[in-house]
Amino acid sequence: MNIQKPGLPKGTRDFGPEKMVRRNYILDHIRKVFQVYGFQPLETPAMENLNVLIGKYGDEGDQLIFKILNSGNFLEGLNQQALQDGYKKTIPQISEKALRYDLTVPFARYVVMNRNEITFPFKRYQVQPVWRADRPQKGRYREFFQCDADVVGTDSLLCEAEIVLMVNEVMQRLGITDFTIKVNNRKVLEGIAAYFGVSGQLTEMTVAIDKLDKIGGEGVAKELVEKRFPAETAKALVDYFTGYQQAGEGNEEKLAYFLNEFNSKTIEIGKKGIEELKEIMQYVKGFGIEDSHLEFDVSLARGLSYYTGAIFEVKANNVEIGSISGGGRYDNLTGVFGLPGVSGVGISFGVDRIYDVMEMLGLFPEQGLQTTTALFCYFDAQGREYSLPLLHQLRQEGLAVEMYPDVVKMKKQLDYANKKNIPFVVIAGEEEIQEGKLSLKNMLNGEQHRLTVIELIEKLKTP
Amino acid sequence: MNIQKPGLPKGTRDFGPEKMVRRNYILDHIRKVFQVYGFQPLETPAMENLNVLIGKYGDEGDQLIFKILNSGNFLEGLNQQALQDGYKKTIPQISEKALRYDLTVPFARYVVMNRNEITFPFKRYQVQPVWRADRPQKGRYREFFQCDADVVGTDSLLCEAEIVLMVNEVMQRLGITDFTIKVNNRKVLEGIAAYFGVSGQLTEMTVAIDKLDKIGGEGVAKELVEKRFPAETAKALVDYFTGYQQAGEGNEEKLAYFLNEFNSKTIEIGKKGIEELKEIMQYVKGFGIEDSHLEFDVSLARGLSYYTGAIFEVKANNVEIGSISGGGRYDNLTGVFGLPGVSGVGISFGVDRIYDVMEMLGLFPEQGLQTTTALFCYFDAQGREYSLPLLHQLRQEGLAVEMYPDVVKMKKQLDYANKKNIPFVVIAGEEEIQEGKLSLKNMLNGEQHRLTVIELIEKLKTP
Repeated sequence: MNIQKPGLPKGTRDFGPEKMVRRNYILDHIRKVFQVYGFQPLETPAMENLNVLIGKYGDEGDQLIFKILNSGNFLEGLNQQALQDGYKKTIPQISEKALRYDLTVPFARYVVMNRNEITFPFKRYQVQPVWRADRPQKGRYREFFQCDADVVGTDSLLCEAEIVLMVNEVMQRLGITDFTIKVNNRKVLEGIAAYFGVSGQLTEMTVAIDKLDKIGGEGVAKELVEKRFPAETAKALVDYFTGYQQAGEGNEEKLAYFLNEFNSKTIEIGKKGIEELKEIMQYVKGFGIEDSHLEFDVSLARGLSYYTGAIFEVKANNVEIGSISGGGRYDNLTGVFGLPGVSGVGISFGVDRIYDVMEMLGLFPEQGLQTTTALFCYFDAQGREYSLPLLHQLRQEGLAVEMYPDVVKMKKQLDYANKKNIPFVVIAGEEEIQEGKLSLKNMLNGEQHRLTVIELIEKLKTP
Repeated sequence: MNIQKPGLPKGTRDFGPEKMVRRNYILDHIRKVFQVYGFQPLETPAMENLNVLIGKYGDEGDQLIFKILNSGNFLEGLNQQALQDGYKKTIPQISEKALRYDLTVPFARYVVMNRNEITFPFKRYQVQPVWRADRPQKGRYREFFQCDADVVGTDSLLCEAEIVLMVNEVMQRLGITDFTIKVNNRKVLEGIAAYFGVSGQLTEMTVAIDKLDKIGGEGVAKELVEKRFPAETAKALVDYFTGYQQAGEGNEEKLAYFLNEFNSKTIEIGKKGIEELKEIMQYVKGFGIEDSHLEFDVSLARGLSYYTGAIFEVKANNVEIGSISGGGRYDNLTGVFGLPGVSGVGISFGVDRIYDVMEMLGLFPEQGLQTTTALFCYFDAQGREYSLPLLHQLRQEGLAVEMYPDVVKMKKQLDYANKKNIPFVVIAGEEEIQEGKLSLKNMLNGEQHRLTVIELIEKLKTP
């Protein structure tokens, strides 16, 4: 057999035990919050038909979709002309499936295919990996997890308020206390476009403004001019979006300021956006939480084109990292699959970034991240034999316990416990066997007790 | 926009809420058992480098691996000659990644790449989907979950015994009481091959015997003859494997019978196999479980070629379905990646089949599979406003509760509760609001109580 040095594909990762336990800690909390808010789990296949995905993420997105080669003789369906016309023409002839690029489009497909069985409003959550053929770089992977919750089939703004609460609860559970939920509304951005007489270029404006953080005001102005905005309009827009803090101190003052702006020019869409935001904030208040961490930010734009109402982005403060969660309302998620009029709102948590934030802030609890509670140690075959039924008894009680499988020196067994970060060892030596007991040793402080198996179970269950 | 009727790729499935909850019920129990036995979680990427997978599953397997088209202009690296030589030659020029085919090869790759960080013996479990371009049919999918636990870095037979215990515990937790763990040893099969003078054709013999259930004795004899076994040997082999019940009643008698057979011809490898099985059974007994469900079956062969010691297969009795779990010991899992001498033993649970068995036997508990505990219902905006902080209070207690987001007729809200299988509704009407209380209605028996929020929380926490 041909021996090879194995490697991982670029931009992908293994998650070993330590990382898994930490990642599950995050995901379990998020899932629990989703469930508490009445969301139900959904999983869709990794592979989708290519025509389900193509055209949903823009030209650039289409390029980043991983395509799967047809199985069997894929060359059969290929004509030479396509080959000569270049690889883009060739793809549909040799590939009819692709890896999902996000969880939103598969969700829309699911809703359309199951519209007659689904109870609306439909609240679903979905935690699965997605794949993108992006250039890998620090913090950007070709396989990464998305963690989405969406409600579809209602335009009640109560759903937006519940999303704000869910974000708060997730952050609270994970111990992230210093964070901001930035909120805006696409209708407000439409209003501003109208205000500056560039309604026809709303998308270009949104896409450019979305980059304010990354490329700064000058960069945005430059991009706007490239997109054929008059130079003065570009400058005025950037000034407006970067100077909005002058609109006032708190959310209410700012909202009042923009409502006034829109009123002054009777821009209905802008007014509607502001009123929606006010209603959302009122519901949040109605739930009675003390600090919602909400901050109205008129320069928040979000890249995705399908948003039509409120948009959110969550930022951990005092940590150099992008947004850790984001979402918003869309009016026509399923229209492209032939089911119009399904409004919805969703939130997505960025698990990789949350992981990094928690590492930077030291928020992973040391306790509770171990996998095995105790290791049974013994000196000889007799000790091992004595231990077997006791090991079984502890496991029947739901305790995670194990035994070194080979008869080896005690030191090797203790090394194993240390390396695996096992907090307790249980020793079955000659004396213990004679007394029908076991010694329990705390690996951290060295404390040792001789106990009956019943006492041992009790001790390990409430450490 | 081009409207299309969306569909799913052949052989793939969506898992909607009901299926997810049932599937998670199974997976959570299996994961819990793995953890209790000291196994640690691992996840590997869906994509592996093609050269990691190719050549590990035989020629037929190679065909069934889903290949991923290189991103960007994949035609660049393609020479015309390859095209003319046919699709097999073309693949490596346009694809360098593929979807994982099982969890074993990625695990071996992980062990080799991380050998210096891993604490051996390394016990890992892995629950992830795999993909195979098989022809889809009833019960066979192109995407399905595998659920594996392996110990590597020890040849202690205690590990085999623990696998038997784990299977027992999984079955017990899931309520599957009537099942058999068939056990055999590849060394016993080697011994039988030697006994019949066909040691050089061990693989062919094993592959054929593995089909006894499917194609019967005649079919197997026919296949053996096709593989150039002398006709009398083929017949004698089939007689031996189908007639082994004559070897005795229980496991001990049967083991003694074959030990005697091997002794009579001094076939050491066969003796070793029998002795290993006896040792495993002794350990199982040593753990003190009453009925291990173990049954020595000399005709158990298992298809995979890498097994070298004990092999297992679990069958639910009185249910028309193939094996629901299987595994065995291998001596050289990582040799192909340049790390020889790593012995290990593993078990794999077939989640789809276990799901089907549980459905057929009605073993899914009705209780505990709901997702939402209670729906808050109200008659008007005032009732909704009154409910918001109470809803929040219940959620803070970890209760899964929700509220219909729009102000609609009570009937519509109750319909929603019924369709979503929500067992309780909480009603906030005029009288409740005046009294500062809530009405709790049991949707199954119609019972209704007016309660304070504290009483309500208590009631819902201990239903």
